Amino acid sequence: MMESLSVDNLIGIKNLNINDIRLIFKTADNFKEIINRPIKKVPSLRDITIANLFFENSTRTKLSFELAEKRLSADILNFSASQSSLKKGESLIDTINNILSMKVDMIVIRHPNAGVPEFISNKVNAVIINAGDGAHEHPTQALLDSYSIREKLGEIRNKNILIVGDVIHSRVALSNIFALKMQGANVKLCGPNSLIPKYINKLGVEVINNLDDALKWCDVVNMLRIQNERMNRSFFPSLREYIRLYGLNNERLDKLGREIIIMHPGPINRGVELTSEIADSKNSIILDQVENGVAIRMAVIYLLAKQKFNR
Amino acid sequence: MMESLSVDNLIGIKNLNINDIRLIFKTADNFKEIINRPIKKVPSLRDITIANLFFENSTRTKLSFELAEKRLSADILNFSASQSSLKKGESLIDTINNILSMKVDMIVIRHPNAGVPEFISNKVNAVIINAGDGAHEHPTQALLDSYSIREKLGEIRNKNILIVGDVIHSRVALSNIFALKMQGANVKLCGPNSLIPKYINKLGVEVINNLDDALKWCDVVNMLRIQNERMNRSFFPSLREYIRLYGLNNERLDKLGREIIIMHPGPINRGVELTSEIADSKNSIILDQVENGVAIRMAVIYLLAKQKFNR
Amino acid sequence: MMESLSVDNLIGIKNLNINDIRLIFKTADNFKEIINRPIKKVPSLRDITIANLFFENSTRTKLSFELAEKRLSADILNFSASQSSLKKGESLIDTINNILSMKVDMIVIRHPNAGVPEFISNKVNAVIINAGDGAHEHPTQALLDSYSIREKLGEIRNKNILIVGDVIHSRVALSNIFALKMQGANVKLCGPNSLIPKYINKLGVEVINNLDDALKWCDVVNMLRIQNERMNRSFFPSLREYIRLYGLNNERLDKLGREIIIMHPGPINRGVELTSEIADSKNSIILDQVENGVAIRMAVIYLLAKQKFNR
Repeated sequence: MMESLSVDNLIGIKNLNINDIRLIFKTADNFKEIINRPIKKVPSLRDITIANLFFENSTRTKLSFELAEKRLSADILNFSASQSSLKKGESLIDTINNILSMKVDMIVIRHPNAGVPEFISNKVNAVIINAGDGAHEHPTQALLDSYSIREKLGEIRNKNILIVGDVIHSRVALSNIFALKMQGANVKLCGPNSLIPKYINKLGVEVINNLDDALKWCDVVNMLRIQNERMNRSFFPSLREYIRLYGLNNERLDKLGREIIIMHPGPINRGVELTSEIADSKNSIILDQVENGVAIRMAVIYLLAKQKFNR
Repeated sequence: MMESLSVDNLIGIKNLNINDIRLIFKTADNFKEIINRPIKKVPSLRDITIANLFFENSTRTKLSFELAEKRLSADILNFSASQSSLKKGESLIDTINNILSMKVDMIVIRHPNAGVPEFISNKVNAVIINAGDGAHEHPTQALLDSYSIREKLGEIRNKNILIVGDVIHSRVALSNIFALKMQGANVKLCGPNSLIPKYINKLGVEVINNLDDALKWCDVVNMLRIQNERMNRSFFPSLREYIRLYGLNNERLDKLGREIIIMHPGPINRGVELTSEIADSKNSIILDQVENGVAIRMAVIYLLAKQKFNR
Repeated sequence: MMESLSVDNLIGIKNLNINDIRLIFKTADNFKEIINRPIKKVPSLRDITIANLFFENSTRTKLSFELAEKRLSADILNFSASQSSLKKGESLIDTINNILSMKVDMIVIRHPNAGVPEFISNKVNAVIINAGDGAHEHPTQALLDSYSIREKLGEIRNKNILIVGDVIHSRVALSNIFALKMQGANVKLCGPNSLIPKYINKLGVEVINNLDDALKWCDVVNMLRIQNERMNRSFFPSLREYIRLYGLNNERLDKLGREIIIMHPGPINRGVELTSEIADSKNSIILDQVENGVAIRMAVIYLLAKQKFNR
């Protein structure tokens, strides 16, 4: 009998358990092997139709999902908010029910408002995958991040993972904290107080304000993006000041006297979160994260489709 | 020998005869059965290339055509006006001749100007399907509407169909009147005089201005969308006034003492044309319309392709 | 053993040699035969994934590449700048490296800045095809132009080819000059001095300012588009004056007393570069150019993919 996930949708890491994560990783291992063959496609989901509903701009997540779906031979409908009837005042649920009436089996949704994927999953009878909702969760990103750490370090248990920067606007940070803690990692945050949410201690993570102190502690550092497009007020005095206090550069890394793994969810602001030298260095796994994203998304889509449609 | 349509293109219902409609419905019956199977695809049109040219925003019609084409295994080119060379001043016919020179067999076109699909069909040697042209016709919508009524009531002959609302801006209304009359239905319209075209009596349909009187008469009510985006002057005093006089709600329906079928071409303005309770009620066939849209479009595309290319 | 090109990417005609052009034409001959069959598809590249990155609006080039890729059974990712993370400040190389990390084999890129495809080809390990970069090169356009002349006249050697109009903003002109000279054609330019680059004599082409004199000399005239969207200052006194001096019309052609071949890279400004009568006349090969574009792009993609991936 096929193993299955404890959930019917992927809304957030918060809804998963450790066996779910292990099953997703095991499945992704298979798919990673497949996408490195000359013929990268499997016919697994040729009976599944997936709609990609992106209500926010995206490059890597959208292309990564699309490619994962193509590698699985699913039929794909792409929907971008800008060319849609939402401009005609249609409600989101009506748009989605319309799409589902056309016999769509699965919806991958990115939305600027937190909670939209969960809300939808309660209203409709299709598999929903959250591709990022506001500042809430971005579960496939956290899965691919953990998968990439595991790939590099062998395991995640007891590793020290530091997340730096704009935590308060970051669905990536929140999903990562849930995923890493569940897998037994130690997680600390670093950033200016204005970018760290007040409730963060409740998640069992500590905050270190000084980046050099925090780097001494960690095995892996995940440099979050400064999300200028989400900031509606000034969260730090100046970009120059931010870079001086929280930007990663060779001088800081050289002082450590040992090597740490460098991650970034992309898109990078080169010279802000980290210098170009570090982004392109041998300890940077930024492009591995992107590669693993396709395998992880194939695994999530495959597992949810198989258990729902049992074909 | 395969039955065939009396036309080479689908420009409007006005150009069809009753046998055409019967053949489209019979073919759609087959496709509806297929799209409710796990494997929803047939290889029928894998030698056909279809270009979808949408010069207006659209969700359901565009996705419905796209899905119909995918279910038939056609090759698809999507063209949206906003990213095209029309901005460079190219004429529409030049754009279309260019696309056809690339060996495209069929064009599905939506255009804000009435008459564009017919104009094109006279100029080029490809199958043209009208996906809505200005306030003129939207033939696949009328076909799916009739098909959905037939599915619910068994037949259309002698049924009383009421079309309510913004008739003057509505290609859906015009195509529906042609289709329903051809099938022997009785059709009446209801709405403020400012939204009913002056020539309407020539089409053999009556107007009832009072919605409650009209509802007493009908078996089916098709609530048209208030198309704010098409109105360039004020057609009624206020939206509140419109809702009071022409909005469908439970109070109105309860007074009837019998059940009627509720239709809407979408996208719905919930709380305007009808309340949410009615949109989601058991007598609403709004989502059936959407589902049937894919089967109807498969039938139209299939029949026109087969008789033109004889493959 | 399969013949192969002397290059790994198609950046510009300048980088090709005459054997490359012959091999591309021979391969295009095969593909042209295939796309005129009922089943226009070959399974040649079903193991190749191609990303189309268009940073400028385009109809014919984008659709032509897309169709060429579909006819070859490649997997396709479409990326348009307007919906991408470039708006979030990501560098172009990061965007491209991200896409390549997802196991994309080939990139077709159009970019407003000259030199971008070459720059990228030096940075990444994928096949790069230039679909037009600023006012620099548009190699597949020049190849399809030469191919169309060859098809019509039998050969290009010693033919007299006149290029008329806005040479200074035209990547099409530059790529055509390189391609035609390499194949032994005589090339002359005609246009107002303000639209002819000062360095043009170094390319071995002469300028004739008077259109009637120039037409007397040529076997083929290629009427360039007036690219209003690229002009940031006034290059000629008025459009009426331009049409009077450089517009092609029947009066001008009738005076010649012999027939010449008419070309235009599109999109046409009818009534500007040439009249509608001439665009649609029997000596116009404008739509042949479009048809041949698909075969040429299939040939280029096929040859570069086969020699790089050796599958």
